[in-house]
Amino acid sequence: MLLIISDGLGDVQCPDLQNKTPLEFGTFSNLNKMCKEGICGMMDPIRPGITPGSDTAHIAILGEDPYKYYQGRGYLEALGTGLKPGADDVGFRLNFGTVTDGIIEDRRAGRSPLGLSRLVRDINDSVELDVPFQFKEATGTRAALILEGDDLSNNVTDGDPHAIYEKPKMVKAADGSDEAKRTADILNDFVAKAQKVLVGHPVNQQRREKSILPANYLLVRGAGLRPKYPTFQERYGVSAACIAATALIRGVAKCYGFDLIDVEGMTGEYDTDIKAKTKATLEALQKYDFVFTHFKPTDTASHDGDPQKKMQMIGYVDYLVSMVMKVSDRKDTVVALTGDHTTPCMIGNHTGEPVPIMFWGGRVRRDYVNHFDEISCTSGGLGRIRGRDVVPMLMNQASKTKIFGA
Amino acid sequence: MLLIISDGLGDVQCPDLQNKTPLEFGTFSNLNKMCKEGICGMMDPIRPGITPGSDTAHIAILGEDPYKYYQGRGYLEALGTGLKPGADDVGFRLNFGTVTDGIIEDRRAGRSPLGLSRLVRDINDSVELDVPFQFKEATGTRAALILEGDDLSNNVTDGDPHAIYEKPKMVKAADGSDEAKRTADILNDFVAKAQKVLVGHPVNQQRREKSILPANYLLVRGAGLRPKYPTFQERYGVSAACIAATALIRGVAKCYGFDLIDVEGMTGEYDTDIKAKTKATLEALQKYDFVFTHFKPTDTASHDGDPQKKMQMIGYVDYLVSMVMKVSDRKDTVVALTGDHTTPCMIGNHTGEPVPIMFWGGRVRRDYVNHFDEISCTSGGLGRIRGRDVVPMLMNQASKTKIFGA
Repeated sequence: MLLIISDGLGDVQCPDLQNKTPLEFGTFSNLNKMCKEGICGMMDPIRPGITPGSDTAHIAILGEDPYKYYQGRGYLEALGTGLKPGADDVGFRLNFGTVTDGIIEDRRAGRSPLGLSRLVRDINDSVELDVPFQFKEATGTRAALILEGDDLSNNVTDGDPHAIYEKPKMVKAADGSDEAKRTADILNDFVAKAQKVLVGHPVNQQRREKSILPANYLLVRGAGLRPKYPTFQERYGVSAACIAATALIRGVAKCYGFDLIDVEGMTGEYDTDIKAKTKATLEALQKYDFVFTHFKPTDTASHDGDPQKKMQMIGYVDYLVSMVMKVSDRKDTVVALTGDHTTPCMIGNHTGEPVPIMFWGGRVRRDYVNHFDEISCTSGGLGRIRGRDVVPMLMNQASKTKIFGA
Repeated sequence: MLLIISDGLGDVQCPDLQNKTPLEFGTFSNLNKMCKEGICGMMDPIRPGITPGSDTAHIAILGEDPYKYYQGRGYLEALGTGLKPGADDVGFRLNFGTVTDGIIEDRRAGRSPLGLSRLVRDINDSVELDVPFQFKEATGTRAALILEGDDLSNNVTDGDPHAIYEKPKMVKAADGSDEAKRTADILNDFVAKAQKVLVGHPVNQQRREKSILPANYLLVRGAGLRPKYPTFQERYGVSAACIAATALIRGVAKCYGFDLIDVEGMTGEYDTDIKAKTKATLEALQKYDFVFTHFKPTDTASHDGDPQKKMQMIGYVDYLVSMVMKVSDRKDTVVALTGDHTTPCMIGNHTGEPVPIMFWGGRVRRDYVNHFDEISCTSGGLGRIRGRDVVPMLMNQASKTKIFGA
């Protein structure tokens, strides 16, 4: 089984593309070949009209109910960044920011990661808190934090005001519990002690000399606990691997019990090495029952409002699909390809429209759709399904489901 | 956002219309224009095969689960009639009926409202019960009653046997609770005391002189409590207005927190002033985020088994739609048009088939349907959705949803 998720794949009519969507307008011969040989439909990641985040969408598409399990983004992102949180620890996302005269000048410290590894190391070496913690740099100017302990809470406010020219906020308990108050106190303590390390640090002197904004403050957000859904091994008894660069997606997959496969050159950005990622996908299919390959740059192009770039990035997915069809045995392979949500280029943010989806290989039934896009797939043989249907449908095609009843 | 619900719009093949449905057979150029420019599908108000009442259908289409919230019709109808019940009071529907020698001769007192206002006033003036009550006449020979207090129940039987040539029934507790017994006792007390006012009342003498059946008995039915679903303001943070003549629909909307807009000439009957209603709709769209316009006569024609009349009434909806398309900015307006259920003319009652639905305006995706009817819309781009999807889909199109997750 191979599940390919092209992040933010769905779109609506783009004025720059003669009012067609990137999938409609572009020439993606391999996607369309897979579509002709397979069966298509539309998929609501959560349910019609609901705008999913990447976290809740992936939880749903990988089979479980995000309304039941989702408990914030921070833990997932920390896990995906490579930290090793315990099952009851609480995780946070952070940005290195630039604060000047008490006011946030830049939430991402000029977007330069220069010297951040050293800053992280020095914070880890010198900061002491009331609980053990794990702190690690992530992509760009991001970082992740884990506070260890089972008497902490994810119900605290963000220190990041999500706006510039404002003061950073103190973290506060969002409910009256002792756990939330304690967590807020520890976080504020961490931010203050880290600030002492950052202000006047040689790295920031060096950044200033290169006209790069200093990384002198940590903006905390996205408190999260582990979502305790069952793993693929527990639910279906299958082995599963994930090929993804994005920390959040890696975290979601890790909680599902997936092995995370690292691929050199896989960046989650426009410069990602799609050939290396394709090779890794094909190799993983030899070793694992279930492979999930995630491709981020289609979403980035959508957030950037750039339909041309989005089409170029869909071209990368088209290449991946060409190799899957070329190399794998159609009888023994079942592929599902979709997006995790719609991100219209004309909006630049996630929206709640459904996403086209197709199944290919094995014994999947045929339909009459021969072009893979948001309009054509509405008349596909799958009809309109939901995110949570995808994995059971793959398992069914691979005969990995147990009968319900007798 | 504009939601147009044409009551009982859905139909099945009519022998009088060459086995087409009224929507298929008629010429509704504006509905079809909206259909061509928008996206269509089929909608099950509750779920496939379930026959909804107008109350449960509207609760569902306005977004919440009627199985969770619905607690009978009486409260909603009383609220829509203009009574001011408290959150825990219990409401009832009533008919003025004609009882002769202890037997129901007519459940609707010859369908004449002559003098009923005075009867209501005199009952309000002279009847005293163990609890405060509110009693008001409604359309035709109907009335509404509220018993005030939080130790009452909606779990009581009807006094109305729903048949003529039978005795009126005593209201009974439908469970063993003290609340139900108390409510039944108070209701029976009310009916008996009201009967004393009605029998021999000058109004009834006057009615007899005009050969109109006397209104000498109150048939009670439809005990209901307030359905405590969240308002649009609470759920979505939007302002909302309802333009509807039918008391029940007004009550449902009122519980959703809608402002009720009164329109002169709006009757909910065949003689309703559709121009006035259309004007009010367009004006409300300038003031409110969300406008819900309800049109009853399509259902009445279906109950009357009159497909010609139904087509004429759909023509009224076609006019409303023509003006919406003419006046509103397509980019800034999102319209959903559907029915609350199917009422086949050949059956004359609600049934469980899905209803055609279309979305128009904003960034809605296209499809290939160009005729708005029960057959064509099955191949629409929306597929088959449910009543509860409609409002989230409108909110999504209007970018009024919050992201779930991050």
